[in-house]
Amino acid sequence: MRKILLALSFATVLPALADEGMWTFDNFPAATVKEKYGANIDGAWLDRVRRSTIRLSNCTASFVSPDGLILTNHHCVESCLAELSSKDASYVQTGYVSRNRKEEMRCATQVADVLQSMEDITGKVTQAAAGLGEAAANEARKQALTRLEQACEKDSKQKCESVTLYQGGQYFLYKYKRYDDVRLVLAPEADIASFGGDPDNFQFPRWSLDFSMLRAYENGKPAKTPDHLPISFAGPAAGQLVFVSGHPGSTARLETRAELEFERDLALPIWLLRYSELRGRYIEFGKTGEAAARIVEAPLNSLENGIKVRRKLQDALHEDSLLEGKGAAEAALRAKMAGDTGFGDPWADIAKATGIERGLYLPYLFLEGAGGFNSATFRYARALVRAAAERGKPNTERLREYTDSALPRLGQQVLAAVPVYPELENLTLSFSLERMREWLGPDHPVVRQLLAKDSPDHLAASLVAGTQLADPALRKQLWDGGAAAIAASSDPMIRLAIAIDEPSRALRKRFEDEVEAPIAAASEKIAAARFKAYGTNVYPDATFTLRLNYGTVAGWNEAGKEVAPFTRLATAFERATGSSPFLIPASWQKVRDSLDMQTPFCISTTSDIVGGNSGSALIDAQGRIVGLMFDGNIHSISGNYWFDSAKNRGIAVHPAIIREALQKVYHADSVLRELGAR
Amino acid sequence: MRKILLALSFATVLPALADEGMWTFDNFPAATVKEKYGANIDGAWLDRVRRSTIRLSNCTASFVSPDGLILTNHHCVESCLAELSSKDASYVQTGYVSRNRKEEMRCATQVADVLQSMEDITGKVTQAAAGLGEAAANEARKQALTRLEQACEKDSKQKCESVTLYQGGQYFLYKYKRYDDVRLVLAPEADIASFGGDPDNFQFPRWSLDFSMLRAYENGKPAKTPDHLPISFAGPAAGQLVFVSGHPGSTARLETRAELEFERDLALPIWLLRYSELRGRYIEFGKTGEAAARIVEAPLNSLENGIKVRRKLQDALHEDSLLEGKGAAEAALRAKMAGDTGFGDPWADIAKATGIERGLYLPYLFLEGAGGFNSATFRYARALVRAAAERGKPNTERLREYTDSALPRLGQQVLAAVPVYPELENLTLSFSLERMREWLGPDHPVVRQLLAKDSPDHLAASLVAGTQLADPALRKQLWDGGAAAIAASSDPMIRLAIAIDEPSRALRKRFEDEVEAPIAAASEKIAAARFKAYGTNVYPDATFTLRLNYGTVAGWNEAGKEVAPFTRLATAFERATGSSPFLIPASWQKVRDSLDMQTPFCISTTSDIVGGNSGSALIDAQGRIVGLMFDGNIHSISGNYWFDSAKNRGIAVHPAIIREALQKVYHADSVLRELGAR
Repeated sequence: MRKILLALSFATVLPALADEGMWTFDNFPAATVKEKYGANIDGAWLDRVRRSTIRLSNCTASFVSPDGLILTNHHCVESCLAELSSKDASYVQTGYVSRNRKEEMRCATQVADVLQSMEDITGKVTQAAAGLGEAAANEARKQALTRLEQACEKDSKQKCESVTLYQGGQYFLYKYKRYDDVRLVLAPEADIASFGGDPDNFQFPRWSLDFSMLRAYENGKPAKTPDHLPISFAGPAAGQLVFVSGHPGSTARLETRAELEFERDLALPIWLLRYSELRGRYIEFGKTGEAAARIVEAPLNSLENGIKVRRKLQDALHEDSLLEGKGAAEAALRAKMAGDTGFGDPWADIAKATGIERGLYLPYLFLEGAGGFNSATFRYARALVRAAAERGKPNTERLREYTDSALPRLGQQVLAAVPVYPELENLTLSFSLERMREWLGPDHPVVRQLLAKDSPDHLAASLVAGTQLADPALRKQLWDGGAAAIAASSDPMIRLAIAIDEPSRALRKRFEDEVEAPIAAASEKIAAARFKAYGTNVYPDATFTLRLNYGTVAGWNEAGKEVAPFTRLATAFERATGSSPFLIPASWQKVRDSLDMQTPFCISTTSDIVGGNSGSALIDAQGRIVGLMFDGNIHSISGNYWFDSAKNRGIAVHPAIIREALQKVYHADSVLRELGAR
Repeated sequence: MRKILLALSFATVLPALADEGMWTFDNFPAATVKEKYGANIDGAWLDRVRRSTIRLSNCTASFVSPDGLILTNHHCVESCLAELSSKDASYVQTGYVSRNRKEEMRCATQVADVLQSMEDITGKVTQAAAGLGEAAANEARKQALTRLEQACEKDSKQKCESVTLYQGGQYFLYKYKRYDDVRLVLAPEADIASFGGDPDNFQFPRWSLDFSMLRAYENGKPAKTPDHLPISFAGPAAGQLVFVSGHPGSTARLETRAELEFERDLALPIWLLRYSELRGRYIEFGKTGEAAARIVEAPLNSLENGIKVRRKLQDALHEDSLLEGKGAAEAALRAKMAGDTGFGDPWADIAKATGIERGLYLPYLFLEGAGGFNSATFRYARALVRAAAERGKPNTERLREYTDSALPRLGQQVLAAVPVYPELENLTLSFSLERMREWLGPDHPVVRQLLAKDSPDHLAASLVAGTQLADPALRKQLWDGGAAAIAASSDPMIRLAIAIDEPSRALRKRFEDEVEAPIAAASEKIAAARFKAYGTNVYPDATFTLRLNYGTVAGWNEAGKEVAPFTRLATAFERATGSSPFLIPASWQKVRDSLDMQTPFCISTTSDIVGGNSGSALIDAQGRIVGLMFDGNIHSISGNYWFDSAKNRGIAVHPAIIREALQKVYHADSVLRELGAR
């Protein structure tokens, strides 16, 4: 892969080549698509697709009926399935099929947002920060965003979120219709939904039925959703033009060399070390019994996905030519700006800031990042303690995650009745306390404060045994009671959150002033230079906001062998070993003879997608769903840094296998009728 | 640290600066020491120190009495303590004090080698390979080494091992007197021997009583060792000249940029990922009961040390300036050779070979490296299967680890009666099978062969339940029975070792011919160029053979603060938390009032040491032991790649705390008498 990297890395600051790009809906290159593929993507098409596309808390989804029925991935609802489960029975393992709307079960921490409009506020934001020093500008910018969100929500009665594009080159207000009552309609068993498990994750060919269905409710009734996308169960043809509308989570294609080196040297290796160990702890814990296996399944799956992503990101950053190309591109843009007095050297400014970040990183990670306190009840405690403190301040002076705009969603998450497992709390908390002591050292003040005369295991056990925060009623009381209730609480997890709050906030302040602020200032300069040099034919990095891309159904060439773009059901049965993650569940084995073994299963496409696009519909030029994105191939992971059009592929579930499953395995007649497939 | 790196990295090919260097005894810079410190290190001094220095299988040690008494680290005998333990009682935890020689217990897998003489065989080896192609030369070189070892052992009745120095610039035969009956005399409890545990490992200030005592036996009686070093219990003064005689394990200071990039990109991150997970599995397993905690303690300690070392090595290789300096040094040497026709570009040759190594690495690691079969009984099976096959071949045609010279030591290891714990076998084997499937993929032929219809957990369980190789009598029968016994065996672990032998050997062959051979040829060229340009004032990389260095007792400056070179007992008691790894054992608490709290505990020195030097004596100019090396500070880990004289420090146990422990805690009167301390 080395040879093409240099060219590709330049592509990160030049107009997108090939079918690359995560375009905002206001800047979609419809003319290019028209010219290249003859398809006519007009405003009506864009509006309908936009209003049919949903942002879940962690994924993308689509409306597929006028009654709020939602299609997304199984792995996007795995946490909901786990929250609805107990240590005695797991919907992750058994799946769930509602026979009627009464059986649809609420996903307590889920929301569905649909983008209604976008407003450019770049001028207002930059004006608020104009003429200020870096730290003050950073603060003023945040205050402006809070103020604009607040005003927007008041005016529009919609959910308003500010969005930073092009690393600060543009600011927008995105206005969403929010559904906070989202219910589970149907999910297959994890064994078929994530068939192949971690070994096959980010691989293709592939046979994973990674789909599920939700429904949005309003006022206790199924939402009316006239904008929705029909499913074309025949699926796409090889070579066909396809689109993905969704919410790519985050990319770093426009980041500087210094920022990528920080990732390579600190963020990725430290994450991988810590979470590989946690993976081992989870796996061994899961072997202690069936209940343990059930409660650890969802967190383990999520962790394994994170490990696989990051180890391929680390591989990508070890391609020295990528970083060298990045440096060359920076030098080229710097040269174009040579005549511009006052431009200075923003890349050097960023390098200096990441140097400071290197020194702050470990304490920040373990304290403000709560990496030393990995526990659901600690996360509740932190949110309760800080929400109480922040609500006592004017809206614009609060930490951004506690503004009036953010609090309702936080409240939903804190107050939702979801299971908390003390065994798992013990495991994660003792692990994280032990690692905090290892990485910060026994002589760090906070480590001494907590562990000078105690062990991580014992401290974790006494905190978990003592806290009552697993009880949603207590959380409600503390949430409603505010600062007075917090001050009066003797809950040990609340006391812990209070005890480490001041050193944590101090680190955050240093990070914001000494790292975030100079990087924001320098990034804004670079963005302006980039617009000046290359125009707006550049797409912004992903920010978990709505984007549209185009591509085709296609395999690729892997080490001289052509990989075909479709797989079929028959091979899944051949691949089964009889044990998870290669286990085909009993529900499928039972009806095996009735299944059409030639049913297409998964699809490979050239779509430029990353995490957050999970659950996105694959859409044809007529606006019909012809697949359901759930993964990329192994080369797609480096898409975080650049797009390799020769090898980067998205992977979708084929609609035909979804119909086969709904009809013959899950007998989901009402859903089929609602989809018009019966 | 960035600024000094460039200068330092050049030092890797220029004469050693400061008190850097791991010198062979035949090339020790005595004149420099004389000039700088006024000390007279003559041939007699060198001979006595050499004949008093012992190479253990994993460490260094010293004779400290005329009756074979040996001083080394606790962590060097931890595996012996574990081998003498059971799941019901652990000498790692309790320590062991023999009251008389009858109570001295044999360490079944340990040996003690003492270097008697060194013979330069460079001419013979290079002549054997002259004029051949790379792969043939590589093979001829190995055959020559086997032949020379064989002849040497026949002539000298000593243990003869060939040694490659300067990456192939020199070849030597080292002749050792070997003691294969080594017995445990005394070891403190792990809680005090490794006080501070993993958090304090590679840290200073430090309070670890990392010492133990062994005894060499000959013909069932304590060996006569007229050459030995007296202990000076007063210890050294700050600033005093000190020497370390020992066996640094391996360094990569002379390796090329391409080789270091291979380490950075593949070897280190993959190792860290796999073993961080295993660490988590060990820890969680250890929590399932007291027996589990006992049997996992020694392997966990060893693993945690390996993780800490490698994560700091990874940090070192992420200092881009190190690699850039390495590249500049290579360019400088290349320029000096510009007129030399036939020199070619050996650095490019090595880069090409490491490119091939990248493609071979994962299958090699999991199959030939047995990374997919992490189990004591598999290691027995592999050794038994291969020993039987290799013994059927002429000596020079065997794999090098099965030559006549190597077989006695291998036999000792395979036949020793040491405990095998099925629970731990299950854990490590299922882990490694699962990771092999993940990294090689479910479609790799060997993975399919083993796991197409089975799960890693189930396969591991059935192998561990079925094999009888934990029984030393069976291993003896298979060892003695050779190929016929192996062919007749139905032991499932033997069958597994046979099943994967051919693909494993095929990978090894490819590795040797396509990676090792061109690197050996190119490295020899570079070594010759280096000698030509810089003479022999360069020391060779460490190869776990005897070296001598000099330095002084000194702390260093850490982020503006001076670190003093001595610690004292009082602080250990202040630091104790009451829980391992900061637990002071009951034996010490009981006599606390009688202890002199001002007793010096640990010492920091500028000695240039790495792993393998553990257990080395710290020696004064009069040839007396004034400390016992057991660790380095955190900056010492990058000593693998370069020596940073400002910050790299070795750490020793002070002899005064050893005497305090022997007298007041362990009441080891006979040992004290033998040491002349009573």
